[in-house]
Amino acid sequence: MADHIVTFDGESEPVTVKTGTLLSEAARMAGIDLNQPCGGQGRCGRCTLQITEGRVRRRSTIRLSEEDLAAGFALACQSIVEDDIHVTVPEQDKIERLLTSDRKVAEITVPEGYDFNLDQAIQAFPLTLSPPDMSDQIDDWSRLSTGLRQQAGIDDVHISLPLLKKIGNTLREGNWDVTAILDTGSEEDRCTPPRLIDLLPGKELIPPPLWAAAIDIGTTTVTVWLVDLITGKVKAQTAQYNKQISRGEDVVSRIIFAGKNGGGEQLRNLVVDSINELLDTACKRIVSDPPLLPENILKATVVGNSTMIHLALGIPPEYIRLMPFTTTVNQVPPLLARELGLNLHPEATVDCLPGVASYVGADITAGVLSSGLDDTEKVTLFMDVGTNGEIVLGSREWLVTCACSAGPAFEGAGVANGMRATKGAIEDIWINDLNLEPSFRVIGDIKPRGICGSGLIALLAEMFLTGVIDKAGNFADNSKTARIREGEHGWEYVICYAEETGTGEDIAITHVDVDNLLRAKAAIYAGFSVLAKNVGIPLDWVEQVLIGGSFGKYINVEKAIEIGLLPDLPWDKFQFLGNTAVRGAYLALLDRQARQRIKEIASRMTYIELSADNTFYEAFMSALFLPHTDLTMFPTVEAAISKKDQS
Amino acid sequence: MADHIVTFDGESEPVTVKTGTLLSEAARMAGIDLNQPCGGQGRCGRCTLQITEGRVRRRSTIRLSEEDLAAGFALACQSIVEDDIHVTVPEQDKIERLLTSDRKVAEITVPEGYDFNLDQAIQAFPLTLSPPDMSDQIDDWSRLSTGLRQQAGIDDVHISLPLLKKIGNTLREGNWDVTAILDTGSEEDRCTPPRLIDLLPGKELIPPPLWAAAIDIGTTTVTVWLVDLITGKVKAQTAQYNKQISRGEDVVSRIIFAGKNGGGEQLRNLVVDSINELLDTACKRIVSDPPLLPENILKATVVGNSTMIHLALGIPPEYIRLMPFTTTVNQVPPLLARELGLNLHPEATVDCLPGVASYVGADITAGVLSSGLDDTEKVTLFMDVGTNGEIVLGSREWLVTCACSAGPAFEGAGVANGMRATKGAIEDIWINDLNLEPSFRVIGDIKPRGICGSGLIALLAEMFLTGVIDKAGNFADNSKTARIREGEHGWEYVICYAEETGTGEDIAITHVDVDNLLRAKAAIYAGFSVLAKNVGIPLDWVEQVLIGGSFGKYINVEKAIEIGLLPDLPWDKFQFLGNTAVRGAYLALLDRQARQRIKEIASRMTYIELSADNTFYEAFMSALFLPHTDLTMFPTVEAAISKKDQS
Repeated sequence: MADHIVTFDGESEPVTVKTGTLLSEAARMAGIDLNQPCGGQGRCGRCTLQITEGRVRRRSTIRLSEEDLAAGFALACQSIVEDDIHVTVPEQDKIERLLTSDRKVAEITVPEGYDFNLDQAIQAFPLTLSPPDMSDQIDDWSRLSTGLRQQAGIDDVHISLPLLKKIGNTLREGNWDVTAILDTGSEEDRCTPPRLIDLLPGKELIPPPLWAAAIDIGTTTVTVWLVDLITGKVKAQTAQYNKQISRGEDVVSRIIFAGKNGGGEQLRNLVVDSINELLDTACKRIVSDPPLLPENILKATVVGNSTMIHLALGIPPEYIRLMPFTTTVNQVPPLLARELGLNLHPEATVDCLPGVASYVGADITAGVLSSGLDDTEKVTLFMDVGTNGEIVLGSREWLVTCACSAGPAFEGAGVANGMRATKGAIEDIWINDLNLEPSFRVIGDIKPRGICGSGLIALLAEMFLTGVIDKAGNFADNSKTARIREGEHGWEYVICYAEETGTGEDIAITHVDVDNLLRAKAAIYAGFSVLAKNVGIPLDWVEQVLIGGSFGKYINVEKAIEIGLLPDLPWDKFQFLGNTAVRGAYLALLDRQARQRIKEIASRMTYIELSADNTFYEAFMSALFLPHTDLTMFPTVEAAISKKDQS
Repeated sequence: MADHIVTFDGESEPVTVKTGTLLSEAARMAGIDLNQPCGGQGRCGRCTLQITEGRVRRRSTIRLSEEDLAAGFALACQSIVEDDIHVTVPEQDKIERLLTSDRKVAEITVPEGYDFNLDQAIQAFPLTLSPPDMSDQIDDWSRLSTGLRQQAGIDDVHISLPLLKKIGNTLREGNWDVTAILDTGSEEDRCTPPRLIDLLPGKELIPPPLWAAAIDIGTTTVTVWLVDLITGKVKAQTAQYNKQISRGEDVVSRIIFAGKNGGGEQLRNLVVDSINELLDTACKRIVSDPPLLPENILKATVVGNSTMIHLALGIPPEYIRLMPFTTTVNQVPPLLARELGLNLHPEATVDCLPGVASYVGADITAGVLSSGLDDTEKVTLFMDVGTNGEIVLGSREWLVTCACSAGPAFEGAGVANGMRATKGAIEDIWINDLNLEPSFRVIGDIKPRGICGSGLIALLAEMFLTGVIDKAGNFADNSKTARIREGEHGWEYVICYAEETGTGEDIAITHVDVDNLLRAKAAIYAGFSVLAKNVGIPLDWVEQVLIGGSFGKYINVEKAIEIGLLPDLPWDKFQFLGNTAVRGAYLALLDRQARQRIKEIASRMTYIELSADNTFYEAFMSALFLPHTDLTMFPTVEAAISKKDQS
């Protein structure tokens, strides 16, 4: 066999290898330490090199896009030297590159064409009023109302008692120059007339900064976005666990707790506390003088599943879990911050967006809004992978929806070392096929503190493909590695030992965790299977899959398919949208039209009750395996397994 | 001279008297003890007898109507025997008869044609809803809304958060038969959409008793009427002093107190307490099982002067007393009982009726409504004699109004032995011209506890006419009676000694009291003089005088003219309406049209600011005498005085 010279540009002396040598072997001979977390299986893409001269034979290009190939990229572990070649080793951050199956969560951008003056319901109007005198003794509120009509063109403005108490002083403090802040309401909905939120003395600050908050009350995670209404920009994003978790991890246990004496009030206080803390945190991130305070926030939109909304409002949620599963209210009338105990401006409008049913709440209608599902011609599957898995199938023509109780595993809760997708969370993970050693990527590049949703999906897939667990989720024997061990809670796999973690304790995944993850993914898979069956379309008619949820910044679709969380469709059909619920709340906060659209979404969606569907349980049981009992539904995974078995 | 036989039917033996003998002397001779509190001056009318046969010569018939004369009535002290006559002595209660100058306060009657179903905004709707099932999982509030639309014809009903918290349980408790209680709002005013007040399980009680309250917050007296909305009847009337009195007797001192630290909140609590106690008292007067509780009251209308309304709502009233005298709000938006701390149903609508200006409040617009002034063709003078004297002059064509600070004397406050027109109050009084001994009529026929407004008017007039005081209000010497004496607070006249009173203490009127009463009556007289002058009509163009205020059941117009409180017009032009403010609140409570009318009244009235009118002070000073410095304006009083001086 012929010898070939392999030159690693700028790295070391060229090496001479025989035809058929793996490029990764040539690199090793040249003293170059390539990252191969998957153990050279061509699975991780981390050993990507760039061939700048000559050619290699690529055994697998699965990790590479057409652009990658055109630029000469090749996986070192999958490329065979058959020529003299020049090779460039990409910089470390380029090696940590995305895979073609990675989907980055969409950026938050201000909706195109957002115009504060046209779209925004919250407005500030500078007014110059004529002072009263003995020939004009009209009352203050009439004077102000007249000013609003004549100078702002707003009629029939409502005022609350607390504001009536203060306007007399404000008008005089401003020497009859004032700035009126109004919620001008919806043009379509005459049930919400324009309303005075505040009156400020003077009119120097025109427009004054106008702040609002988009709030997503998840069963597990509460998210608050702080929005500058003038520019429409999200200026701070904050999230933390819903403090209600301490009273039950899922909606059913919360509902049961709410039924206990004082339980409802406890839960209400806990979630209000959670939101208020986030508002506080968000405000502290804004640099301004005077400092921004939560009471400067003039409006909030709130989304959440129906149970979360009921609990936050103090409405007993008990009938949500009892046949026939009814909520008390899906379209909550506009409320005021002071009615709810939220530390916004006391007169701030709190607009709970509309839900559809007991288990398809405002988080999902908001998700549909932010995903654009209600306005696409493509048959689209939308899934929100939170504590519940809610699924919507449809297009601009039709929308069906269902909910499956997935549990909070993919939100990092209910998993021993799970955590939210925040600093210190392992968001991607690889296990070396040969020695079962893991490597991982941590959000914020610090010592790991736990694993978030995307990390758990990767971990489950890797453990399955490398044989750490079998298709039923049982751990293999521990002869190959000390990382598989019997711990306090049964068998587990250690991802990171205490000395390398940010917590000073081992990060491991237990048998119980694996079971939870299996049930979560099975519930979701069964959900959309039943939904597709119900409307009579095969899953491969789906033209795009839009996924919301509290994952990290990147999600690997291939791995999500490998564990059977997602259907086995081409990778380019998938898009990860991040927290679609809070995004929808943000859109509805900005734009009256968007607010109207979400109302229409809620009324258009047809809800299918899975508990009344006897095919669901069967579908769920079948999906409790990795990836599924019926491998023919996962042809690419079947191929990967059989390839691995052959190797 | 001839002798005549006078026969007192059924009383005694006939007596024989000479021609020219007074009938009262004949009665004395027959051993009949006639009541002559005025001392035989023909002023009191208490010695009225009926001549059944023969004739007498009547020296004065001023106390007798034409019907009286036709029926043979004659005053014993003014009738001369010139014939054999038969005389009937009327029974005691007929002797205590009304004088032609007495005006009885109008009865409270349900407005003619009141139809609960057509006129009343508060309605109860029985609903039978279909229970949810797995094929109909619509939320509770949508189900209820649909029921209201389909079964009651009411669209777009608003619901509050507290009600959202309870409807889930109520619907199920009633097994989906419920009674919805709504404030259906105003048809004219789309700013007040229909609103759910309560939802009751079951629908047995159709219609259930629906209760409401009309509330008049006077500076001195708070009045609450409890109204059965189905029949429209006033079922209980209660009143008591406004507890704010302890913090100042008039609006100005209250406003000053409100400006002190915590003063406004104190005043608010005091008046809310006053109202809540009255609500409680009123409810206890209703016999029902279960007992009626204040929280069963579904609506309230509230009237009061602008300061009282501001204080009750907690709105700072300070600019009311500062030039240019502006209120914060004249047309208060609808509020809820729970916002105000009123012990009504927490969701009860509290409708503060509209006022006009700082010193012409909702009590006056309500007074105009209940007096019918806004709908009469006659030029009408309406005056509300309360702590402030508010006056309206006009007809259906025009309305002008002013306010003069009269003080609370005619409400029995600010007068040593003054009291409200309630049980134990002296409501009419006569002083014997000869011995200056008083006699009086007490509300409830019990021992007197004090003197109410009508009693004070009578007392002042009697003291003036009998010379107890002179025209400047100074006490005469005490040589004629021990009842004029120098007491702790200067000169005084004792009406009733301790042993005969209900309090065990003397009831007297002091020099200070007289001064207060003079100032009060002078302010009122000056008010309507200036008003008439302002619109350029002489006072005798006035075709009727309608008087509201917290008087007793009867008011003697002659005496009110004698003290110069009322203009010297024929007695039949006067009508006493009692508390016109609470009556107006009652009318607006019953009838949506009346509520609309009061709004129109408020917008129609032209307010004249007396403090900006330099003729007011002059008019006030001239009116500080009894009846007035210019006697030519009181020709009948002038005549009475000169007649007395001749006698």
